Amino acid sequence: MIVALAGGVGAARFLDGLSQVHPPKEICIIGNTGDDMEMHGLYICPDLDTVVYTLAGLANPVHGWGVDGDSFRCLEALGKLNAETWFQLGDRDLATHIYRTARLRAGESLSTVTAAIARSLGVACILKPVSDDPVRTIVQTPGGPLEFQTYFVRRRAQDEVLGVEFQGAEDARPAPGVLRAIRSASAIVFCPSNPIISIGPILAVPGIRQALRRRKCPAAAISPIIGGRALKGPAADMMRGMGMEVSSLGVARIYRGMVDLFILDRADKRLAPEVEKLGMRAVVTNTIMTGPAQKKALARAVLKALERT
Amino acid sequence: MIVALAGGVGAARFLDGLSQVHPPKEICIIGNTGDDMEMHGLYICPDLDTVVYTLAGLANPVHGWGVDGDSFRCLEALGKLNAETWFQLGDRDLATHIYRTARLRAGESLSTVTAAIARSLGVACILKPVSDDPVRTIVQTPGGPLEFQTYFVRRRAQDEVLGVEFQGAEDARPAPGVLRAIRSASAIVFCPSNPIISIGPILAVPGIRQALRRRKCPAAAISPIIGGRALKGPAADMMRGMGMEVSSLGVARIYRGMVDLFILDRADKRLAPEVEKLGMRAVVTNTIMTGPAQKKALARAVLKALERT
Repeated sequence: MIVALAGGVGAARFLDGLSQVHPPKEICIIGNTGDDMEMHGLYICPDLDTVVYTLAGLANPVHGWGVDGDSFRCLEALGKLNAETWFQLGDRDLATHIYRTARLRAGESLSTVTAAIARSLGVACILKPVSDDPVRTIVQTPGGPLEFQTYFVRRRAQDEVLGVEFQGAEDARPAPGVLRAIRSASAIVFCPSNPIISIGPILAVPGIRQALRRRKCPAAAISPIIGGRALKGPAADMMRGMGMEVSSLGVARIYRGMVDLFILDRADKRLAPEVEKLGMRAVVTNTIMTGPAQKKALARAVLKALERT
Repeated sequence: MIVALAGGVGAARFLDGLSQVHPPKEICIIGNTGDDMEMHGLYICPDLDTVVYTLAGLANPVHGWGVDGDSFRCLEALGKLNAETWFQLGDRDLATHIYRTARLRAGESLSTVTAAIARSLGVACILKPVSDDPVRTIVQTPGGPLEFQTYFVRRRAQDEVLGVEFQGAEDARPAPGVLRAIRSASAIVFCPSNPIISIGPILAVPGIRQALRRRKCPAAAISPIIGGRALKGPAADMMRGMGMEVSSLGVARIYRGMVDLFILDRADKRLAPEVEKLGMRAVVTNTIMTGPAQKKALARAVLKALERT
């Protein structure tokens, strides 16, 4: 069983490739819930849904989130009722949020409902939220604390990031099976996700970091930063704001002690020696997933490197 | 101020006409909540919404419920998640339920939220649910009790009706302003709605029936039964099942003591003398609202009759 720590779009693309070169039933994905939110009384899990939609072949191939070809009639009608419409919720996508919210309110756990949604949409990988307890990513800005989606979507990531906090993480317990999956994994992969706000909340749940440090299998991380930039999302700005080096090396530092292999893009080849000084083997390959072939090639390269470790 | 007691489609059509021949701000509609339901965790008010959509010019002109031209993408997606899909919920319609549910869960009252929805959609009439407390119409059938929408939509009104119960009605309080509206009305109209399950739940809320009996203004009821049939919905079958006479006369008996005028269709002219024996004046006119002109004509006829009382 390969255990993958996953954020949103970057992770979903990598996992799409991985599930085509490794039996999907032997992939256990531990998903970020830090950017979950409530909107219109609905419980929304952007990262979990991005992973599910991508693996179900439903995702929008251009921006990566939401359901491809979705319409926005409900959102338009919500706008006429003077409800907030800054968070794009398509009609098909809404079904997921409505369904999840109803089952959560009926007392079921997020991991039970997440598994049911994945199964119903034909996803064979195992998908677990890192925790059934709420973990909320709060971005500290000069104007005060902002919930992640408010910072990222509503305010378009324009605020300076002074720091990040994972509210509730201290008291959160890993979801059922998460620690067991890490302990019994044959390999662990940190997907190419934002290390601060996608992987960060996962690592902030008590027990996870320790389980990763005590792993009995090789672990690899794929850098989401290429040539000093994030392909997607606010990772670069956030790292800069928090005084970190915006580079693959900066990412490798965050994962120090938890990974044995660090996968860098060819563009960052020169950083390989520095990465290796952190006690991890640097693997240089093409990490930009421009299409299905690149996704699979990256997954194969990661698996190959893990096998050799 | 005209106070109108209203169910769903028949009432909405009549009120559409009434609001065109009387200032809509001087019409206070007291709406049925007995067939409200929770589905997918959303709080749905079929009758209130039918009235709002109709008065806002958004209603589907053919079947009368829902939003005209609505799509059903969210419902289709809910079906893929194995959620129930027997209750048709369009994408635009869903916005109303999502919005209402969020505000109710935030602690606001149904009457506050109903007023906000009506206002946002440009409805000038005052619309109040009969109560902010839950009143649920339960249909007794040979197979056991059924919630109204289960009886009517899911099981297509095929079960024999042994009786009807309004769960919660005994403990329900009239919504703020409802009793005051009845007491200070210049006229009261019982819309052409199912007397058992549309007007029945309104009358079952303590205080309403008494306020109607003690009215200081004329009150008129429009028969929803024409020639022994209901134009819409299960009224005829329900009356039959409950041992009532399925006719305008049967309806008039239900409203005895609460109305001064009873409006019958020309097809039921022969029943007028029997109706008058119940202590109400029978007014024979065309009550079938096939189009905008007929709606207005019926409203004018009712107003004229009320003025003469």
